Amino acid sequence: MKNNQFANYTPTFETQIKELKAMKFYIDAETNLTFLLEQSLDKVFLDYQTARSKHQKYHSLLATDSTSVDDFFTMKNELTPTIFYNIALQLLEFEVGIDFKIDDPFTAMTKIQLPSIEIINSVDDFWSAWYLLLTTHTKNGQVFTDLLANKGYFVSFYEDAKPLFFNGKAQPVFDTTKLIREVVYVEAPLDTDHDGQRDLLKTEILRPTVTSGFKVPVLYTASPYNQGTNDEAEVMHNVDIPLAEKPVTDLSEADITSTYQEPELPNPRPVLSETTETEQTFSREFSYTLNDYMLARGFAIVYAAGIGTRESDGIRTCGSVEETVSTVAIIEWLTGQRQAFTNKLNNRAIKATWSNGNVAMTGKSYLGTLATAAATTGVSGLKTIISEAAISSWYDYYRENGLVVAPAACQGEDADVLAELCLSRKKDAADYTTIQNYFSEVMDKLAIGQDRESGNYNQFWDERNYLNQVQNIKANIIMVHGLNDWNVKPRQVEQLWQALRPSPVVKKLFLHQGKHIYINNFRSLDFTDMMNLWLSNQLYAVENGAETLIPNVTMQDNLNAETWHTFDDWADPDSPVQSYHFHQDKLTQSVTSDEHQSVTFKDDLPDDIFNAYVTNNNLWEHDLISTKETNMAENRVQLVTDSFTERLFLSGSAHVKLSVSAGQTKGLISCMLIDYGEANRLNEMPTVLGRKALDTGFHWREDDLVEFTKSATSTPWKMISKGHINLQNRTNRYQNDSVLPGTFNTIEFDLQPTAYQVEKGHRLGLVIYATDFGMTLRNNDSDIYTINLANSRLKVPYQPVTTLF
Amino acid sequence: MKNNQFANYTPTFETQIKELKAMKFYIDAETNLTFLLEQSLDKVFLDYQTARSKHQKYHSLLATDSTSVDDFFTMKNELTPTIFYNIALQLLEFEVGIDFKIDDPFTAMTKIQLPSIEIINSVDDFWSAWYLLLTTHTKNGQVFTDLLANKGYFVSFYEDAKPLFFNGKAQPVFDTTKLIREVVYVEAPLDTDHDGQRDLLKTEILRPTVTSGFKVPVLYTASPYNQGTNDEAEVMHNVDIPLAEKPVTDLSEADITSTYQEPELPNPRPVLSETTETEQTFSREFSYTLNDYMLARGFAIVYAAGIGTRESDGIRTCGSVEETVSTVAIIEWLTGQRQAFTNKLNNRAIKATWSNGNVAMTGKSYLGTLATAAATTGVSGLKTIISEAAISSWYDYYRENGLVVAPAACQGEDADVLAELCLSRKKDAADYTTIQNYFSEVMDKLAIGQDRESGNYNQFWDERNYLNQVQNIKANIIMVHGLNDWNVKPRQVEQLWQALRPSPVVKKLFLHQGKHIYINNFRSLDFTDMMNLWLSNQLYAVENGAETLIPNVTMQDNLNAETWHTFDDWADPDSPVQSYHFHQDKLTQSVTSDEHQSVTFKDDLPDDIFNAYVTNNNLWEHDLISTKETNMAENRVQLVTDSFTERLFLSGSAHVKLSVSAGQTKGLISCMLIDYGEANRLNEMPTVLGRKALDTGFHWREDDLVEFTKSATSTPWKMISKGHINLQNRTNRYQNDSVLPGTFNTIEFDLQPTAYQVEKGHRLGLVIYATDFGMTLRNNDSDIYTINLANSRLKVPYQPVTTLF
Repeated sequence: MKNNQFANYTPTFETQIKELKAMKFYIDAETNLTFLLEQSLDKVFLDYQTARSKHQKYHSLLATDSTSVDDFFTMKNELTPTIFYNIALQLLEFEVGIDFKIDDPFTAMTKIQLPSIEIINSVDDFWSAWYLLLTTHTKNGQVFTDLLANKGYFVSFYEDAKPLFFNGKAQPVFDTTKLIREVVYVEAPLDTDHDGQRDLLKTEILRPTVTSGFKVPVLYTASPYNQGTNDEAEVMHNVDIPLAEKPVTDLSEADITSTYQEPELPNPRPVLSETTETEQTFSREFSYTLNDYMLARGFAIVYAAGIGTRESDGIRTCGSVEETVSTVAIIEWLTGQRQAFTNKLNNRAIKATWSNGNVAMTGKSYLGTLATAAATTGVSGLKTIISEAAISSWYDYYRENGLVVAPAACQGEDADVLAELCLSRKKDAADYTTIQNYFSEVMDKLAIGQDRESGNYNQFWDERNYLNQVQNIKANIIMVHGLNDWNVKPRQVEQLWQALRPSPVVKKLFLHQGKHIYINNFRSLDFTDMMNLWLSNQLYAVENGAETLIPNVTMQDNLNAETWHTFDDWADPDSPVQSYHFHQDKLTQSVTSDEHQSVTFKDDLPDDIFNAYVTNNNLWEHDLISTKETNMAENRVQLVTDSFTERLFLSGSAHVKLSVSAGQTKGLISCMLIDYGEANRLNEMPTVLGRKALDTGFHWREDDLVEFTKSATSTPWKMISKGHINLQNRTNRYQNDSVLPGTFNTIEFDLQPTAYQVEKGHRLGLVIYATDFGMTLRNNDSDIYTINLANSRLKVPYQPVTTLF
Repeated sequence: MKNNQFANYTPTFETQIKELKAMKFYIDAETNLTFLLEQSLDKVFLDYQTARSKHQKYHSLLATDSTSVDDFFTMKNELTPTIFYNIALQLLEFEVGIDFKIDDPFTAMTKIQLPSIEIINSVDDFWSAWYLLLTTHTKNGQVFTDLLANKGYFVSFYEDAKPLFFNGKAQPVFDTTKLIREVVYVEAPLDTDHDGQRDLLKTEILRPTVTSGFKVPVLYTASPYNQGTNDEAEVMHNVDIPLAEKPVTDLSEADITSTYQEPELPNPRPVLSETTETEQTFSREFSYTLNDYMLARGFAIVYAAGIGTRESDGIRTCGSVEETVSTVAIIEWLTGQRQAFTNKLNNRAIKATWSNGNVAMTGKSYLGTLATAAATTGVSGLKTIISEAAISSWYDYYRENGLVVAPAACQGEDADVLAELCLSRKKDAADYTTIQNYFSEVMDKLAIGQDRESGNYNQFWDERNYLNQVQNIKANIIMVHGLNDWNVKPRQVEQLWQALRPSPVVKKLFLHQGKHIYINNFRSLDFTDMMNLWLSNQLYAVENGAETLIPNVTMQDNLNAETWHTFDDWADPDSPVQSYHFHQDKLTQSVTSDEHQSVTFKDDLPDDIFNAYVTNNNLWEHDLISTKETNMAENRVQLVTDSFTERLFLSGSAHVKLSVSAGQTKGLISCMLIDYGEANRLNEMPTVLGRKALDTGFHWREDDLVEFTKSATSTPWKMISKGHINLQNRTNRYQNDSVLPGTFNTIEFDLQPTAYQVEKGHRLGLVIYATDFGMTLRNNDSDIYTINLANSRLKVPYQPVTTLF
């Protein structure tokens, strides 16, 4: 067990005392430290409601190896740091004999990475230690004050109903059984369903009941999914079709630059009346537990699904400018810049009188994508976004280097499929009939725009490339991404990180070892605390050092569980690079004699094997990567280094340069970078350490406590990264080059960026192949590819391993 | 999607009207059916709080293919059954175009198995249809009234705070934000920690605030796990040791009959004072969502972990009589037969004045086991138990036919390991010091009693065999078990089912296709409703036909998803039996020429393969069962039938008779029954259809909605059942016979009971082997086994396939 806590703020002692008083912990007259501890404990054993029941509980805990806490108090013995921390660790739910030794709590605390104070001689020392204890993580990875909150510590604060900050972080002093749940309809500057009226957008608000006159900031999550999705009607594109041979083109950047123009708009609705009371509510929303957590702590939470979703107007157009405008409209209402109504019929306006005008956006995947999109408009009031596993350019979600390349486990999905999926107006049958035909027309155009035939970057995708507007961003940004996310791939965050280099906004990056997941419920990292610190700072203007306490880059180790490294940067374009030469089956750092040769591989397979791979992607991936003889042996080139004599810390995007010829007038190349070496690696999915073990407040919503643990069984390899390219896109992702059968051309492309340590004794492998059964079009046409070894290279950016210590 | 609803009760029309009135649905003066519907809809669209917002919502729903619900009401058109059910299906969250066609709702309703009324011509017809609709399941498998409850329908009932029954089932009319959470300490007639005082048992109570004077029944879950478990300290027995050669014995039943005698007991504590106020509370308990569901509906919920758990007295002794007595003590307090105190120090007594004296027990695994144990005492007040995946005899949990046989994925676990795991007093370090030495002594004795050396049934296990006391059971019993539960294996429930045949108590059995899971959150079966019907009947004496509406045996189909069959019986000892003869590699129904031969297999493996199997049980099982050449090819005999020309419905326990010789003076035989045939089978684990999609009440706790779905990829086989026997236990499970090397002996044993359809075209296989890497001791000693084919048989009990239609 290792605790990685970054959000511990150390204010001056005077501030600590002030905060302890506000938290009702400070005891004024007492000077005996043992008595101080006893009185302090009285406040935290909340389940024990009488002196006698507390007495009974204290009798069950140890102060020393032979003295119970109860006896320690009775005997009025002197408080020592050892006794203080023996008791403290038990309060934090660590177990004597399991987690620490009763005669030496400090060894365990050092190992677990728990903070402590060495000397507790004075009343001031005591309060410093108590303050620090209150901010320390429990065995379940929660701040101790959160554990107390979950037992009802803050119930006596409910009546006051205004925010309380401790250690720079908002505390759960709001009664979540008395939340206000409201629906309003925000009028967006859009008419995407062409009904002659501006689109009204259903907006769900959850907010705490606060002291009259007090205004709260807003966490806003734009989730196209949260009014339901049309899963059962989903129709994927057929991917078992041949790669098209594309006519040679000679395009300029201007040809592929978005020509989006703001359409003429109907006038806004006239306001016929105004009100402060909504007409619609909801009982349960699709929620993000980080939002739930902050809601109890004095933040309003707003969910909106946007145009084309159930009970809203408009249609969906997957990542279009309209979707950005739709997303931003909600912020504009929250900051007094736009109108909302209590229903869609009689123009009864309502203002967000309860909002303090400071908005943050949260959410993962499409939700984080829309947060990024909103930020690129520079909309005022949007102070920060926490964008997790977000898309920065839709081309890179559904395409790559002139190829149709699907997100993992989403073969056949495309912009039109996702638009249909999210058009939840379909769920209200009568409402759907009003847009069905128009939506169908728009989808026909969208299908042309997305152009599955060429796979090229074009104006359609350029409209959906938020990187074009990075310079407009005014909101500070927290970015979170999984280094093993093959749905929204790591390039999405890396491009944004690179594009933001010149920007003055504060940017922080979290890179974890997971796939497409949230990380606010991990035990080893205080992500939730950091976000609380951050949001308290950004939206409540609490001076808590958030901008410096939160590291610029926090990166999870891939070799050791519960280990997080911090850096100032990632994927620095000036990183040192290790270059590898190609041989028949080897990668070496230097030229050797057999280099002036070539290797070939084919792309077609016997029908039964092809079909087996189509239905079983794991089998295909296994056969592709395996060093043993498999059905993929002739369908790939496998180049592997010698065993590493020391660990390599690969960081950034590996780059592949290939001199390749195809047997036809078209072709594609895929590459995987592999860590070969038997090892017990981190499991792919986090392990649930405790079902519903994390409360977001007192009798409020719960989350599972999870952690990446090491697998009990070893694996012989792990895929580090991959990439794909159309041979006709040698020049760039929008222009078609010619491919002549048997003629060598040089292609160069980056694999997905990552941060990965290859252990000493392991070997680095590059697997070169064509059809990627999980991602590219797949068709059993015969083709043969030849790689000219001498003119091919693998370039791997790295950082000194010493940067990890 | 298929709805299997058994708990729909049909009272008289007069009762229906009375119930509709009590539910505030009945509208008196209105006679126009369209108006009636409009006014009824007004009550169910709870999120829409004004006429205008309802109007807006109705406008989005369809009454006919061209008319919205809103327009239908405006035009005052005539209500037809088609329109009624078009609207009803939308209320039930079915989607037009996806789930049903707007011009014909009835075809879909028939397919989904939703009830309807054909004629809606009169006011009476309308109310019959509305009543039926209120009791019908939504697309998410909840009763419509539950969906309404989750949107707040019953908030206006909170003030009255007394139970309300509709359609025979309790409704959630209690405010779960105002629950009472109390801890008391029940004094058990035990002193298991030998401290000279009777054991006090921590008891957690959650109960609704009710109308003064009103008493509630109790759902009580005895969970040794719910005060925490000592996972990190768990030490398993080493299983990589040789099977012992056992000295030949000649024991009688008397020798293995429990000699448990009630020990001398300290006197009960004197009551020094009495109170009605507790002194201790809790914020969150380990809960079962079925309990949560019933809590909102007027049932108190009680959790107690029993002797040896955190904050209780005593020690744990794994399934002993003391654990049963500990479990029952709580019921005795709930029914006024035993004392409880508000703390453990000053003998302040408290009575369960709020209990109506009717108790049910719930829970799965060890929890269900203790429910069964409690029932076998015949304790008064215990009206019924719902025992899920429960142990009926601990011998069959850790042993089998004279062998140590572990539950799946629990290699090395035993009674002592489980006792240590559950001794959560260890978590309170000072408390633990008071029992540490004594507990250690008891564990030493327990290790002798459980006797891993022989694996035999003995007095220790006989004390832990609840089947011995089945005749004492007075509580009616609901039994639930997974036919693929290899933790608590299906024999556990089958033995209880058989033993209860002569008993007059009502017994109901649910057999599902899952492993060791709960089934109260499946979409296709109204298990929760049936339990509500049952508990309302048993504990509130509501006359609702529960005993006849709930089928005697409800069994999930293994071929088709969402399909449940009902029977009067299961594993009838008089079932017809198909007998199979053995050949070199075949099973046939008749004798053939090659029968008079033998086959051999060995038990040892090359070290590397042995070690690989030790760490990777899936690999071992694959290699064992595969029909291809694997590393297990010489370590098993694989006998397979010809392809079935028609489907076989295997039901009960397959029986194996083997004439076998071993190469040593000891030995073991394992058998697996396999369904060979490529097929898309049900997934092993339920698929989550909706995360947190099931509410147990309004703003109350949530559960995931799940269902067994068919796998997208096919598998070549499925293990149907298995069994193990020690060759020295030919006679029975307690006597040791001699084994002479090379001498044939006949052994006979049952495989685990099941209910399984082998499809036409599939083949039934029997795999005979020795070491079971997942369950038996495993040691790479060489041994060789020979099977005499002529004298061996497989006998398979079956039922006509027609019983499934």
